[in-house]
Amino acid sequence: MEKMSEAKSNSDSNAGNAIVPGMPSSEEERPDEDLLLAAAYVYDAQYNRNIPFETSPQAVRLYYFYNHWAMQIATYFFILVDLSLALFEDPAAYPLPFLVTALVEVMCLVAFFSRLVHFSRVTPRNLFWKDTKNICVMVTIMLNLIDLIICGALSIAQIRTIRWTRVLRPIYLVNFAESRQIRRAFRSIRNTLPEILYVFLLFMFSVLAFSLMAMKLFGSRKLKTAEGEPYFENYLEGVFNLYVLVTTANSPDVMMPAYDYNRWYSIFFIAYIILNTYIFMSVFLAVVYNNYRKHLKNEIRKLAYMKRRKMVEAFNALKVKEGTEFVISEARWKHLVKLVAPDISNSHRELLLRVSNDAKTSYVGKEAFLRLADLLNIKVITMKARMHPLESWLPYLYKSALSCFIHKVVRHKGFVYAFDVIILVNAIFIALDDKSPLIANAEWVFLTLYILEILLKLYTYDPRTFFAKNQFWNWFDTFIIVAALIATSVNAGLKSASQYNSQQVLDIVFILRVLRLIRIIDSVQRFRVIVNTLINILPTMLTFCGLILVIYYVFAVVGMEIFSGKIRFFPANSTDPLAHSCGAAVLKDSVFARSKYCRNNFNDIASSFIVLVELTVVNQWHDILYVMGITSLKPSVSFSTWILTLNMLILLITQYL
Amino acid sequence: MEKMSEAKSNSDSNAGNAIVPGMPSSEEERPDEDLLLAAAYVYDAQYNRNIPFETSPQAVRLYYFYNHWAMQIATYFFILVDLSLALFEDPAAYPLPFLVTALVEVMCLVAFFSRLVHFSRVTPRNLFWKDTKNICVMVTIMLNLIDLIICGALSIAQIRTIRWTRVLRPIYLVNFAESRQIRRAFRSIRNTLPEILYVFLLFMFSVLAFSLMAMKLFGSRKLKTAEGEPYFENYLEGVFNLYVLVTTANSPDVMMPAYDYNRWYSIFFIAYIILNTYIFMSVFLAVVYNNYRKHLKNEIRKLAYMKRRKMVEAFNALKVKEGTEFVISEARWKHLVKLVAPDISNSHRELLLRVSNDAKTSYVGKEAFLRLADLLNIKVITMKARMHPLESWLPYLYKSALSCFIHKVVRHKGFVYAFDVIILVNAIFIALDDKSPLIANAEWVFLTLYILEILLKLYTYDPRTFFAKNQFWNWFDTFIIVAALIATSVNAGLKSASQYNSQQVLDIVFILRVLRLIRIIDSVQRFRVIVNTLINILPTMLTFCGLILVIYYVFAVVGMEIFSGKIRFFPANSTDPLAHSCGAAVLKDSVFARSKYCRNNFNDIASSFIVLVELTVVNQWHDILYVMGITSLKPSVSFSTWILTLNMLILLITQYL
Repeated sequence: MEKMSEAKSNSDSNAGNAIVPGMPSSEEERPDEDLLLAAAYVYDAQYNRNIPFETSPQAVRLYYFYNHWAMQIATYFFILVDLSLALFEDPAAYPLPFLVTALVEVMCLVAFFSRLVHFSRVTPRNLFWKDTKNICVMVTIMLNLIDLIICGALSIAQIRTIRWTRVLRPIYLVNFAESRQIRRAFRSIRNTLPEILYVFLLFMFSVLAFSLMAMKLFGSRKLKTAEGEPYFENYLEGVFNLYVLVTTANSPDVMMPAYDYNRWYSIFFIAYIILNTYIFMSVFLAVVYNNYRKHLKNEIRKLAYMKRRKMVEAFNALKVKEGTEFVISEARWKHLVKLVAPDISNSHRELLLRVSNDAKTSYVGKEAFLRLADLLNIKVITMKARMHPLESWLPYLYKSALSCFIHKVVRHKGFVYAFDVIILVNAIFIALDDKSPLIANAEWVFLTLYILEILLKLYTYDPRTFFAKNQFWNWFDTFIIVAALIATSVNAGLKSASQYNSQQVLDIVFILRVLRLIRIIDSVQRFRVIVNTLINILPTMLTFCGLILVIYYVFAVVGMEIFSGKIRFFPANSTDPLAHSCGAAVLKDSVFARSKYCRNNFNDIASSFIVLVELTVVNQWHDILYVMGITSLKPSVSFSTWILTLNMLILLITQYL
Repeated sequence: MEKMSEAKSNSDSNAGNAIVPGMPSSEEERPDEDLLLAAAYVYDAQYNRNIPFETSPQAVRLYYFYNHWAMQIATYFFILVDLSLALFEDPAAYPLPFLVTALVEVMCLVAFFSRLVHFSRVTPRNLFWKDTKNICVMVTIMLNLIDLIICGALSIAQIRTIRWTRVLRPIYLVNFAESRQIRRAFRSIRNTLPEILYVFLLFMFSVLAFSLMAMKLFGSRKLKTAEGEPYFENYLEGVFNLYVLVTTANSPDVMMPAYDYNRWYSIFFIAYIILNTYIFMSVFLAVVYNNYRKHLKNEIRKLAYMKRRKMVEAFNALKVKEGTEFVISEARWKHLVKLVAPDISNSHRELLLRVSNDAKTSYVGKEAFLRLADLLNIKVITMKARMHPLESWLPYLYKSALSCFIHKVVRHKGFVYAFDVIILVNAIFIALDDKSPLIANAEWVFLTLYILEILLKLYTYDPRTFFAKNQFWNWFDTFIIVAALIATSVNAGLKSASQYNSQQVLDIVFILRVLRLIRIIDSVQRFRVIVNTLINILPTMLTFCGLILVIYYVFAVVGMEIFSGKIRFFPANSTDPLAHSCGAAVLKDSVFARSKYCRNNFNDIASSFIVLVELTVVNQWHDILYVMGITSLKPSVSFSTWILTLNMLILLITQYL
C-alpha cells in the first residue's frame, strides 16, 4: 500500500511540472485554455483516440502530458521490457539471477501503475472505475506483485515454483489505451465467435461421425500403420487422426493402410477431405470473413461518429457569434492549427485555411471546421524546385558541357536499363562459386559501379529531393550499398589480418549482396505497384502480428511451464547416450528423433516461439505436439483437448490473415 | 468420307420424324410456327442457352429435337463412355481387348459427329464454321480416328505405342454446347491469368532470391539433412526445396539442419514463410478473387443482355397491334406458356398471367412479356390441404379418440426430442463393441423404433406431403432406414445360413448405421440452415468438380503414359524381393517405401486419380512426385519444370474453390 501511494505522489509531481509541447506561453490565460481544450479534441479526432477527459485547465494540461510521445514511448518501452523478461527468467535463453529480473519487473509494475494513476487524473473519476480496462490492469498488477513476493520467498527457501502470472503480462500490451488497434482486432474476433460456433459444431459432428464410421470399418481388420501402430482401433485416437487429416498434415499416411487393404476405402478418405478440409474450411472462412467485415464496418462507423462529436466539442470551445451563426475567427483557427500540427509549414497552413474558408471571409464556418481533422490527416508533399547545392557553389563547373552531358546520361532511360543489366550479371556472379579470386574481385567492381551510380544520381538530382521521406527505394539502395561496402571492407580487413573469414561478417556480406538484387523490382512499373500496395497494408498486418505475438506469448509461457526440459537438444558431436533420442528414453527410434526435431522444444522462450510458428504452418504439427505430450503427460483425453483448443485457436487466427 | 455422309443422312431422317414435345397438333399451321419459334426463344432465355439458330420452321423443329432431353442425355452418356474407356484401356484397371475398346470408341466418335452434324443443320452455316468449338471438336474427332487406326495397325503387329490423343478426350466434355458452365469457368480462369502473372513473377523472383541466399549461407557449411542428403549445396535443389516450403509440405524438416547449426538461422526460414506462404499466397488469392468476381460480373451482364434480346425476338414473333402499341393476346400467351412449361398446373399459369397482366386487359404488354423467362424460373410450391387417404377410406377409425391422441403425440415437440435422445443413445451403442449379442440385438430395437417413427408420421401427415419433392430430410430418413433394414436382414440371413459375415454387407450396415446419426442435424434450426446453404451451392461446386475432373483426366492420362508400371504395389504377404521397395530397386529404404506409399502410382486411371487427389491435398506431394521422377527419368531440370507446372496449376485450381 505504501508503494502505491508513493507511485501516486510521484505521478502527481510529474503532472505538476507538465510541459505542454508547442504551446506559446505569452498569450492571455482564458482563450489559451479554450484553445488547449479545442486542440486536445482535434488531436483526439485526428488520431482516432477515444479517451474521455476532464475539461478543467489542469486536467487538459495533464491530458497533453499523458499523450506526449515520450510518455507513450516510455509505456511501450516498459511493456516491452516486461514481456522480454521471459528471455531471462528460468527457463531462460540468457539466464539472469532471480533478484535482477524481480527488480526489473517491480520497476515495470511501478511504471504501469503510475501511468494508470496519471490516467485516473485525466479521466472523470466515475468513468475511470467503470472502465474494465483499468480494473483489469490493476488486478493484473496486484496478482503479479503477489506472485513475485511468493516466488521470492520460495526462491530463498530454494523451492522452485510455477510463476503463473507471467501468462497475464500481455494484458498490459492489450489494455493500455495506446493499443487501440490490437483491442479492436480482438473485439472483432470475439464478436465473430458466436457466429462460427454453429459451423464449428457441425464440423465437429462430422469429424466424430466419420471417426465412428472409420472405427467400425477398419478397427476390426487388425490393420497396422507404417509405424506399426494399431489403425483406428481406439475411438479417441481415430478422432485425433481424422482431425489431423483436416489440417492435411498426415494426408496420405492415414489413408494408406486402408487403401492397401482395399482400394475402394480410399473413397471414404476422399469424401472426408472434400467435406471437412475443403467445404467446411471454406464455409468457416466465408463466415469469418463476412462477420469480420460486418463488425469492422460497425467499428468504423462508430469511429466516424466519435470523430465528428469531438470536432463539435472543439468547435463549441472556440465559437463566437457572427451574425446569425456561430463561427471561429481566422486568427484562432490559425493558433489552433499551430498547436495541433506545429511542424507543418506556413504555406501548408494557408492551403488548409483556403480549403476551410473558400468564401475568403475572416472566419471559418462550422461544417468547414468539422473537416479539419481529416484535412490534417492528408499527407501534403511539398515539392520545391531547389537548385543543386553544387550549382550555387560552383555554377561555372556545374554548367559546363561535360557536366551537362553527365546529367543527360543519368537522366536517360538507358542509364536505368544499363544498371538493370549490371544487376542481372551480378546475380550470375553471386550464384557462381566465390572461392575463385576472379569472382571475389568482381565483387569490388560491382560495388564500385553501384557507388558510382548513387554518386552520379546525387550529382544530377538535388540530394534533398533524392533523400526525401517518401523516396523509399533511394534510401533502400543507399543503405544496402553502404552497408555492403562496410561489411565487405571489414571482411577483407579481417581476412588479410588473420587469414580467417569471420562467419558472421561473411553471412552479412552474402545477405546484403542478395538483397541488392531487389533493386530490379523498382525498374518494372507493375512490380513497384504490387510492392507499394504491400507496404501500404503493412500497418494492418503489423496489428495482426501484434495480436499473434500476444497469443504466442501466452502459449509459449504456458508451454514452458509444462514442457520445459523434457526434450533436449544435443550438438552433433555429443556423446550422451540419449543424444539420439532428444534426451528422452521414450523417443528412441521415434519419427521425431529420426527427423532430428530435437530442437523443437519449449526450453526457452525463443525456442517456444519457433515451435509455435511451426505449429502455425501446420505441417507436422501433430507429430511435434504428440511428442510434447508423451514426454510430459500420458496421452489422455485432457491432453488431446488441450491440443485441439490450441490448434483451433491458431487456425482461427491464421484465417484472419 | 462415306461414314460422314452416312451420319449426316441418318441425322436428317431423324430430324424428319422429330416429335416436338408437348405440342398440340390440332392448331392451324402458320401461328403454330410463330408460336414454336417464340417458344424456342423463351426456352433459350429461361435456361440461358446461347445458340444462334435458323428461324425457318424446319430448322426450329430440328432445334427442338436438338435440345430434347433424350438427345442431351445421350450426348452426356457417350462423353462419359468415351472418358471411362481409360478404365479399360492398357494400362487398365479392368483390362479389355483392344478390339472392344476401339469399337466402343468408334461408336462414341460417330455419336459425337452426328451430334455435330445435327447442330450444323440448326445453326446458320456461316456461324457454324466460325465457331471454334465446332472446329475443335471436328479436329479432335479426326485426330482420335487417325490415332485409333495407327494403334490398331500397330497392335496387330504387336507393337505397343503411346495413345497420345486420349489426352484430348475431355475436349468433348468442354466443347459441346451443354457444358456452358464448365466453359464459363474455364474462360474466367483464363481471363485471370494475365493479371496474376506479375504477382507470380514477383513471387518467383522472391523464391529465387531466397534460394540464392540459402545457398550462400548454408551451402558451404557441409550440413546434412535428416536423410543424410547435402543441404542447399545445389542451386536448383535449393529452389525446389524452398518452393516446397511455400506449400508447407516440408515445413520443419527443411529448417532443422540450419536451426540445429545456429538458432538465428531460423529467422531466415520464418521470414521466408511469412513473405511467401502467407503474404504472397494471400495476394494471389485476393487478385484471383477480385478478377474472378469482375469477369463473372461481366459474364452475368452479358447473359442478362442475351436473355432480354431473346425475349424481344419471341415478342416480335407473336406481337399484334393493339391501339398504338404492340402486344400479345392472352390466348397466344397461354399457348406459349403451355408449350414452354407443359408441366405447370393451370392455377400456376393463371398466377403467371395475373402477374404479367395486372391491368386485367385481354393482352400482355411488351415489358411484362420480357419478364416471362424470369417468372418461369421462379419455383412455386403448391401447398394443398389434402385429406389423409385413411381419413377418406376409414373416417370413423381415423377420427377415433385413440387416433386423435396419436396425432397429438406425433405433432408434439416432445416426439422430436424423444427421437433425438434415441439417436444419441444409438450413437453410444454404435460406438460400443458389437461382438456382444446384447448390442447386436439392440440394433433391431433401434431399427424398429425408427420404422415406427416413420409409420407414425405417415399416419399423422399426408403421405403425399411427407414425400413431396422439397422434403429432402424425409426422403433421406426413409431411404437410410429402409436400406439399413434390408442390409441388416441380409446380413442376419447370411450369418444364420453360412455362419459367416459378408464383409461387404457388414460395411454397408456400418455405414448406414452411422449415416442415421445425421438426422440429429435436422432438429437444430441453425444446423439445418447451414446444410441447406451447402445444398444450394452444390450446383456451383459440381461445375468446379467437373473442371477439376477434366484437369485430373488430362494429368492422369499423361501420367499413365510416363509413369505406369514403374512403381508396383505388392500385397502384404508377397515374397517378391522387391516388395519392400515398391518394385523399384532405386526406392530401397527410401522414405516413400518406408511409409508404405507403394499404392500411390500411375498404374491405372483409378490409382492416378487418387494420387492426383493426394497431390491436391498438398501434404507430402514433393515426396510422391520426386519418387515418380527418380523411377522414370533422371531428376533433370525439365522434370522439375514439369512438377512446378503441375503443382502451380493444381494450386491455382484449388484457390478457386
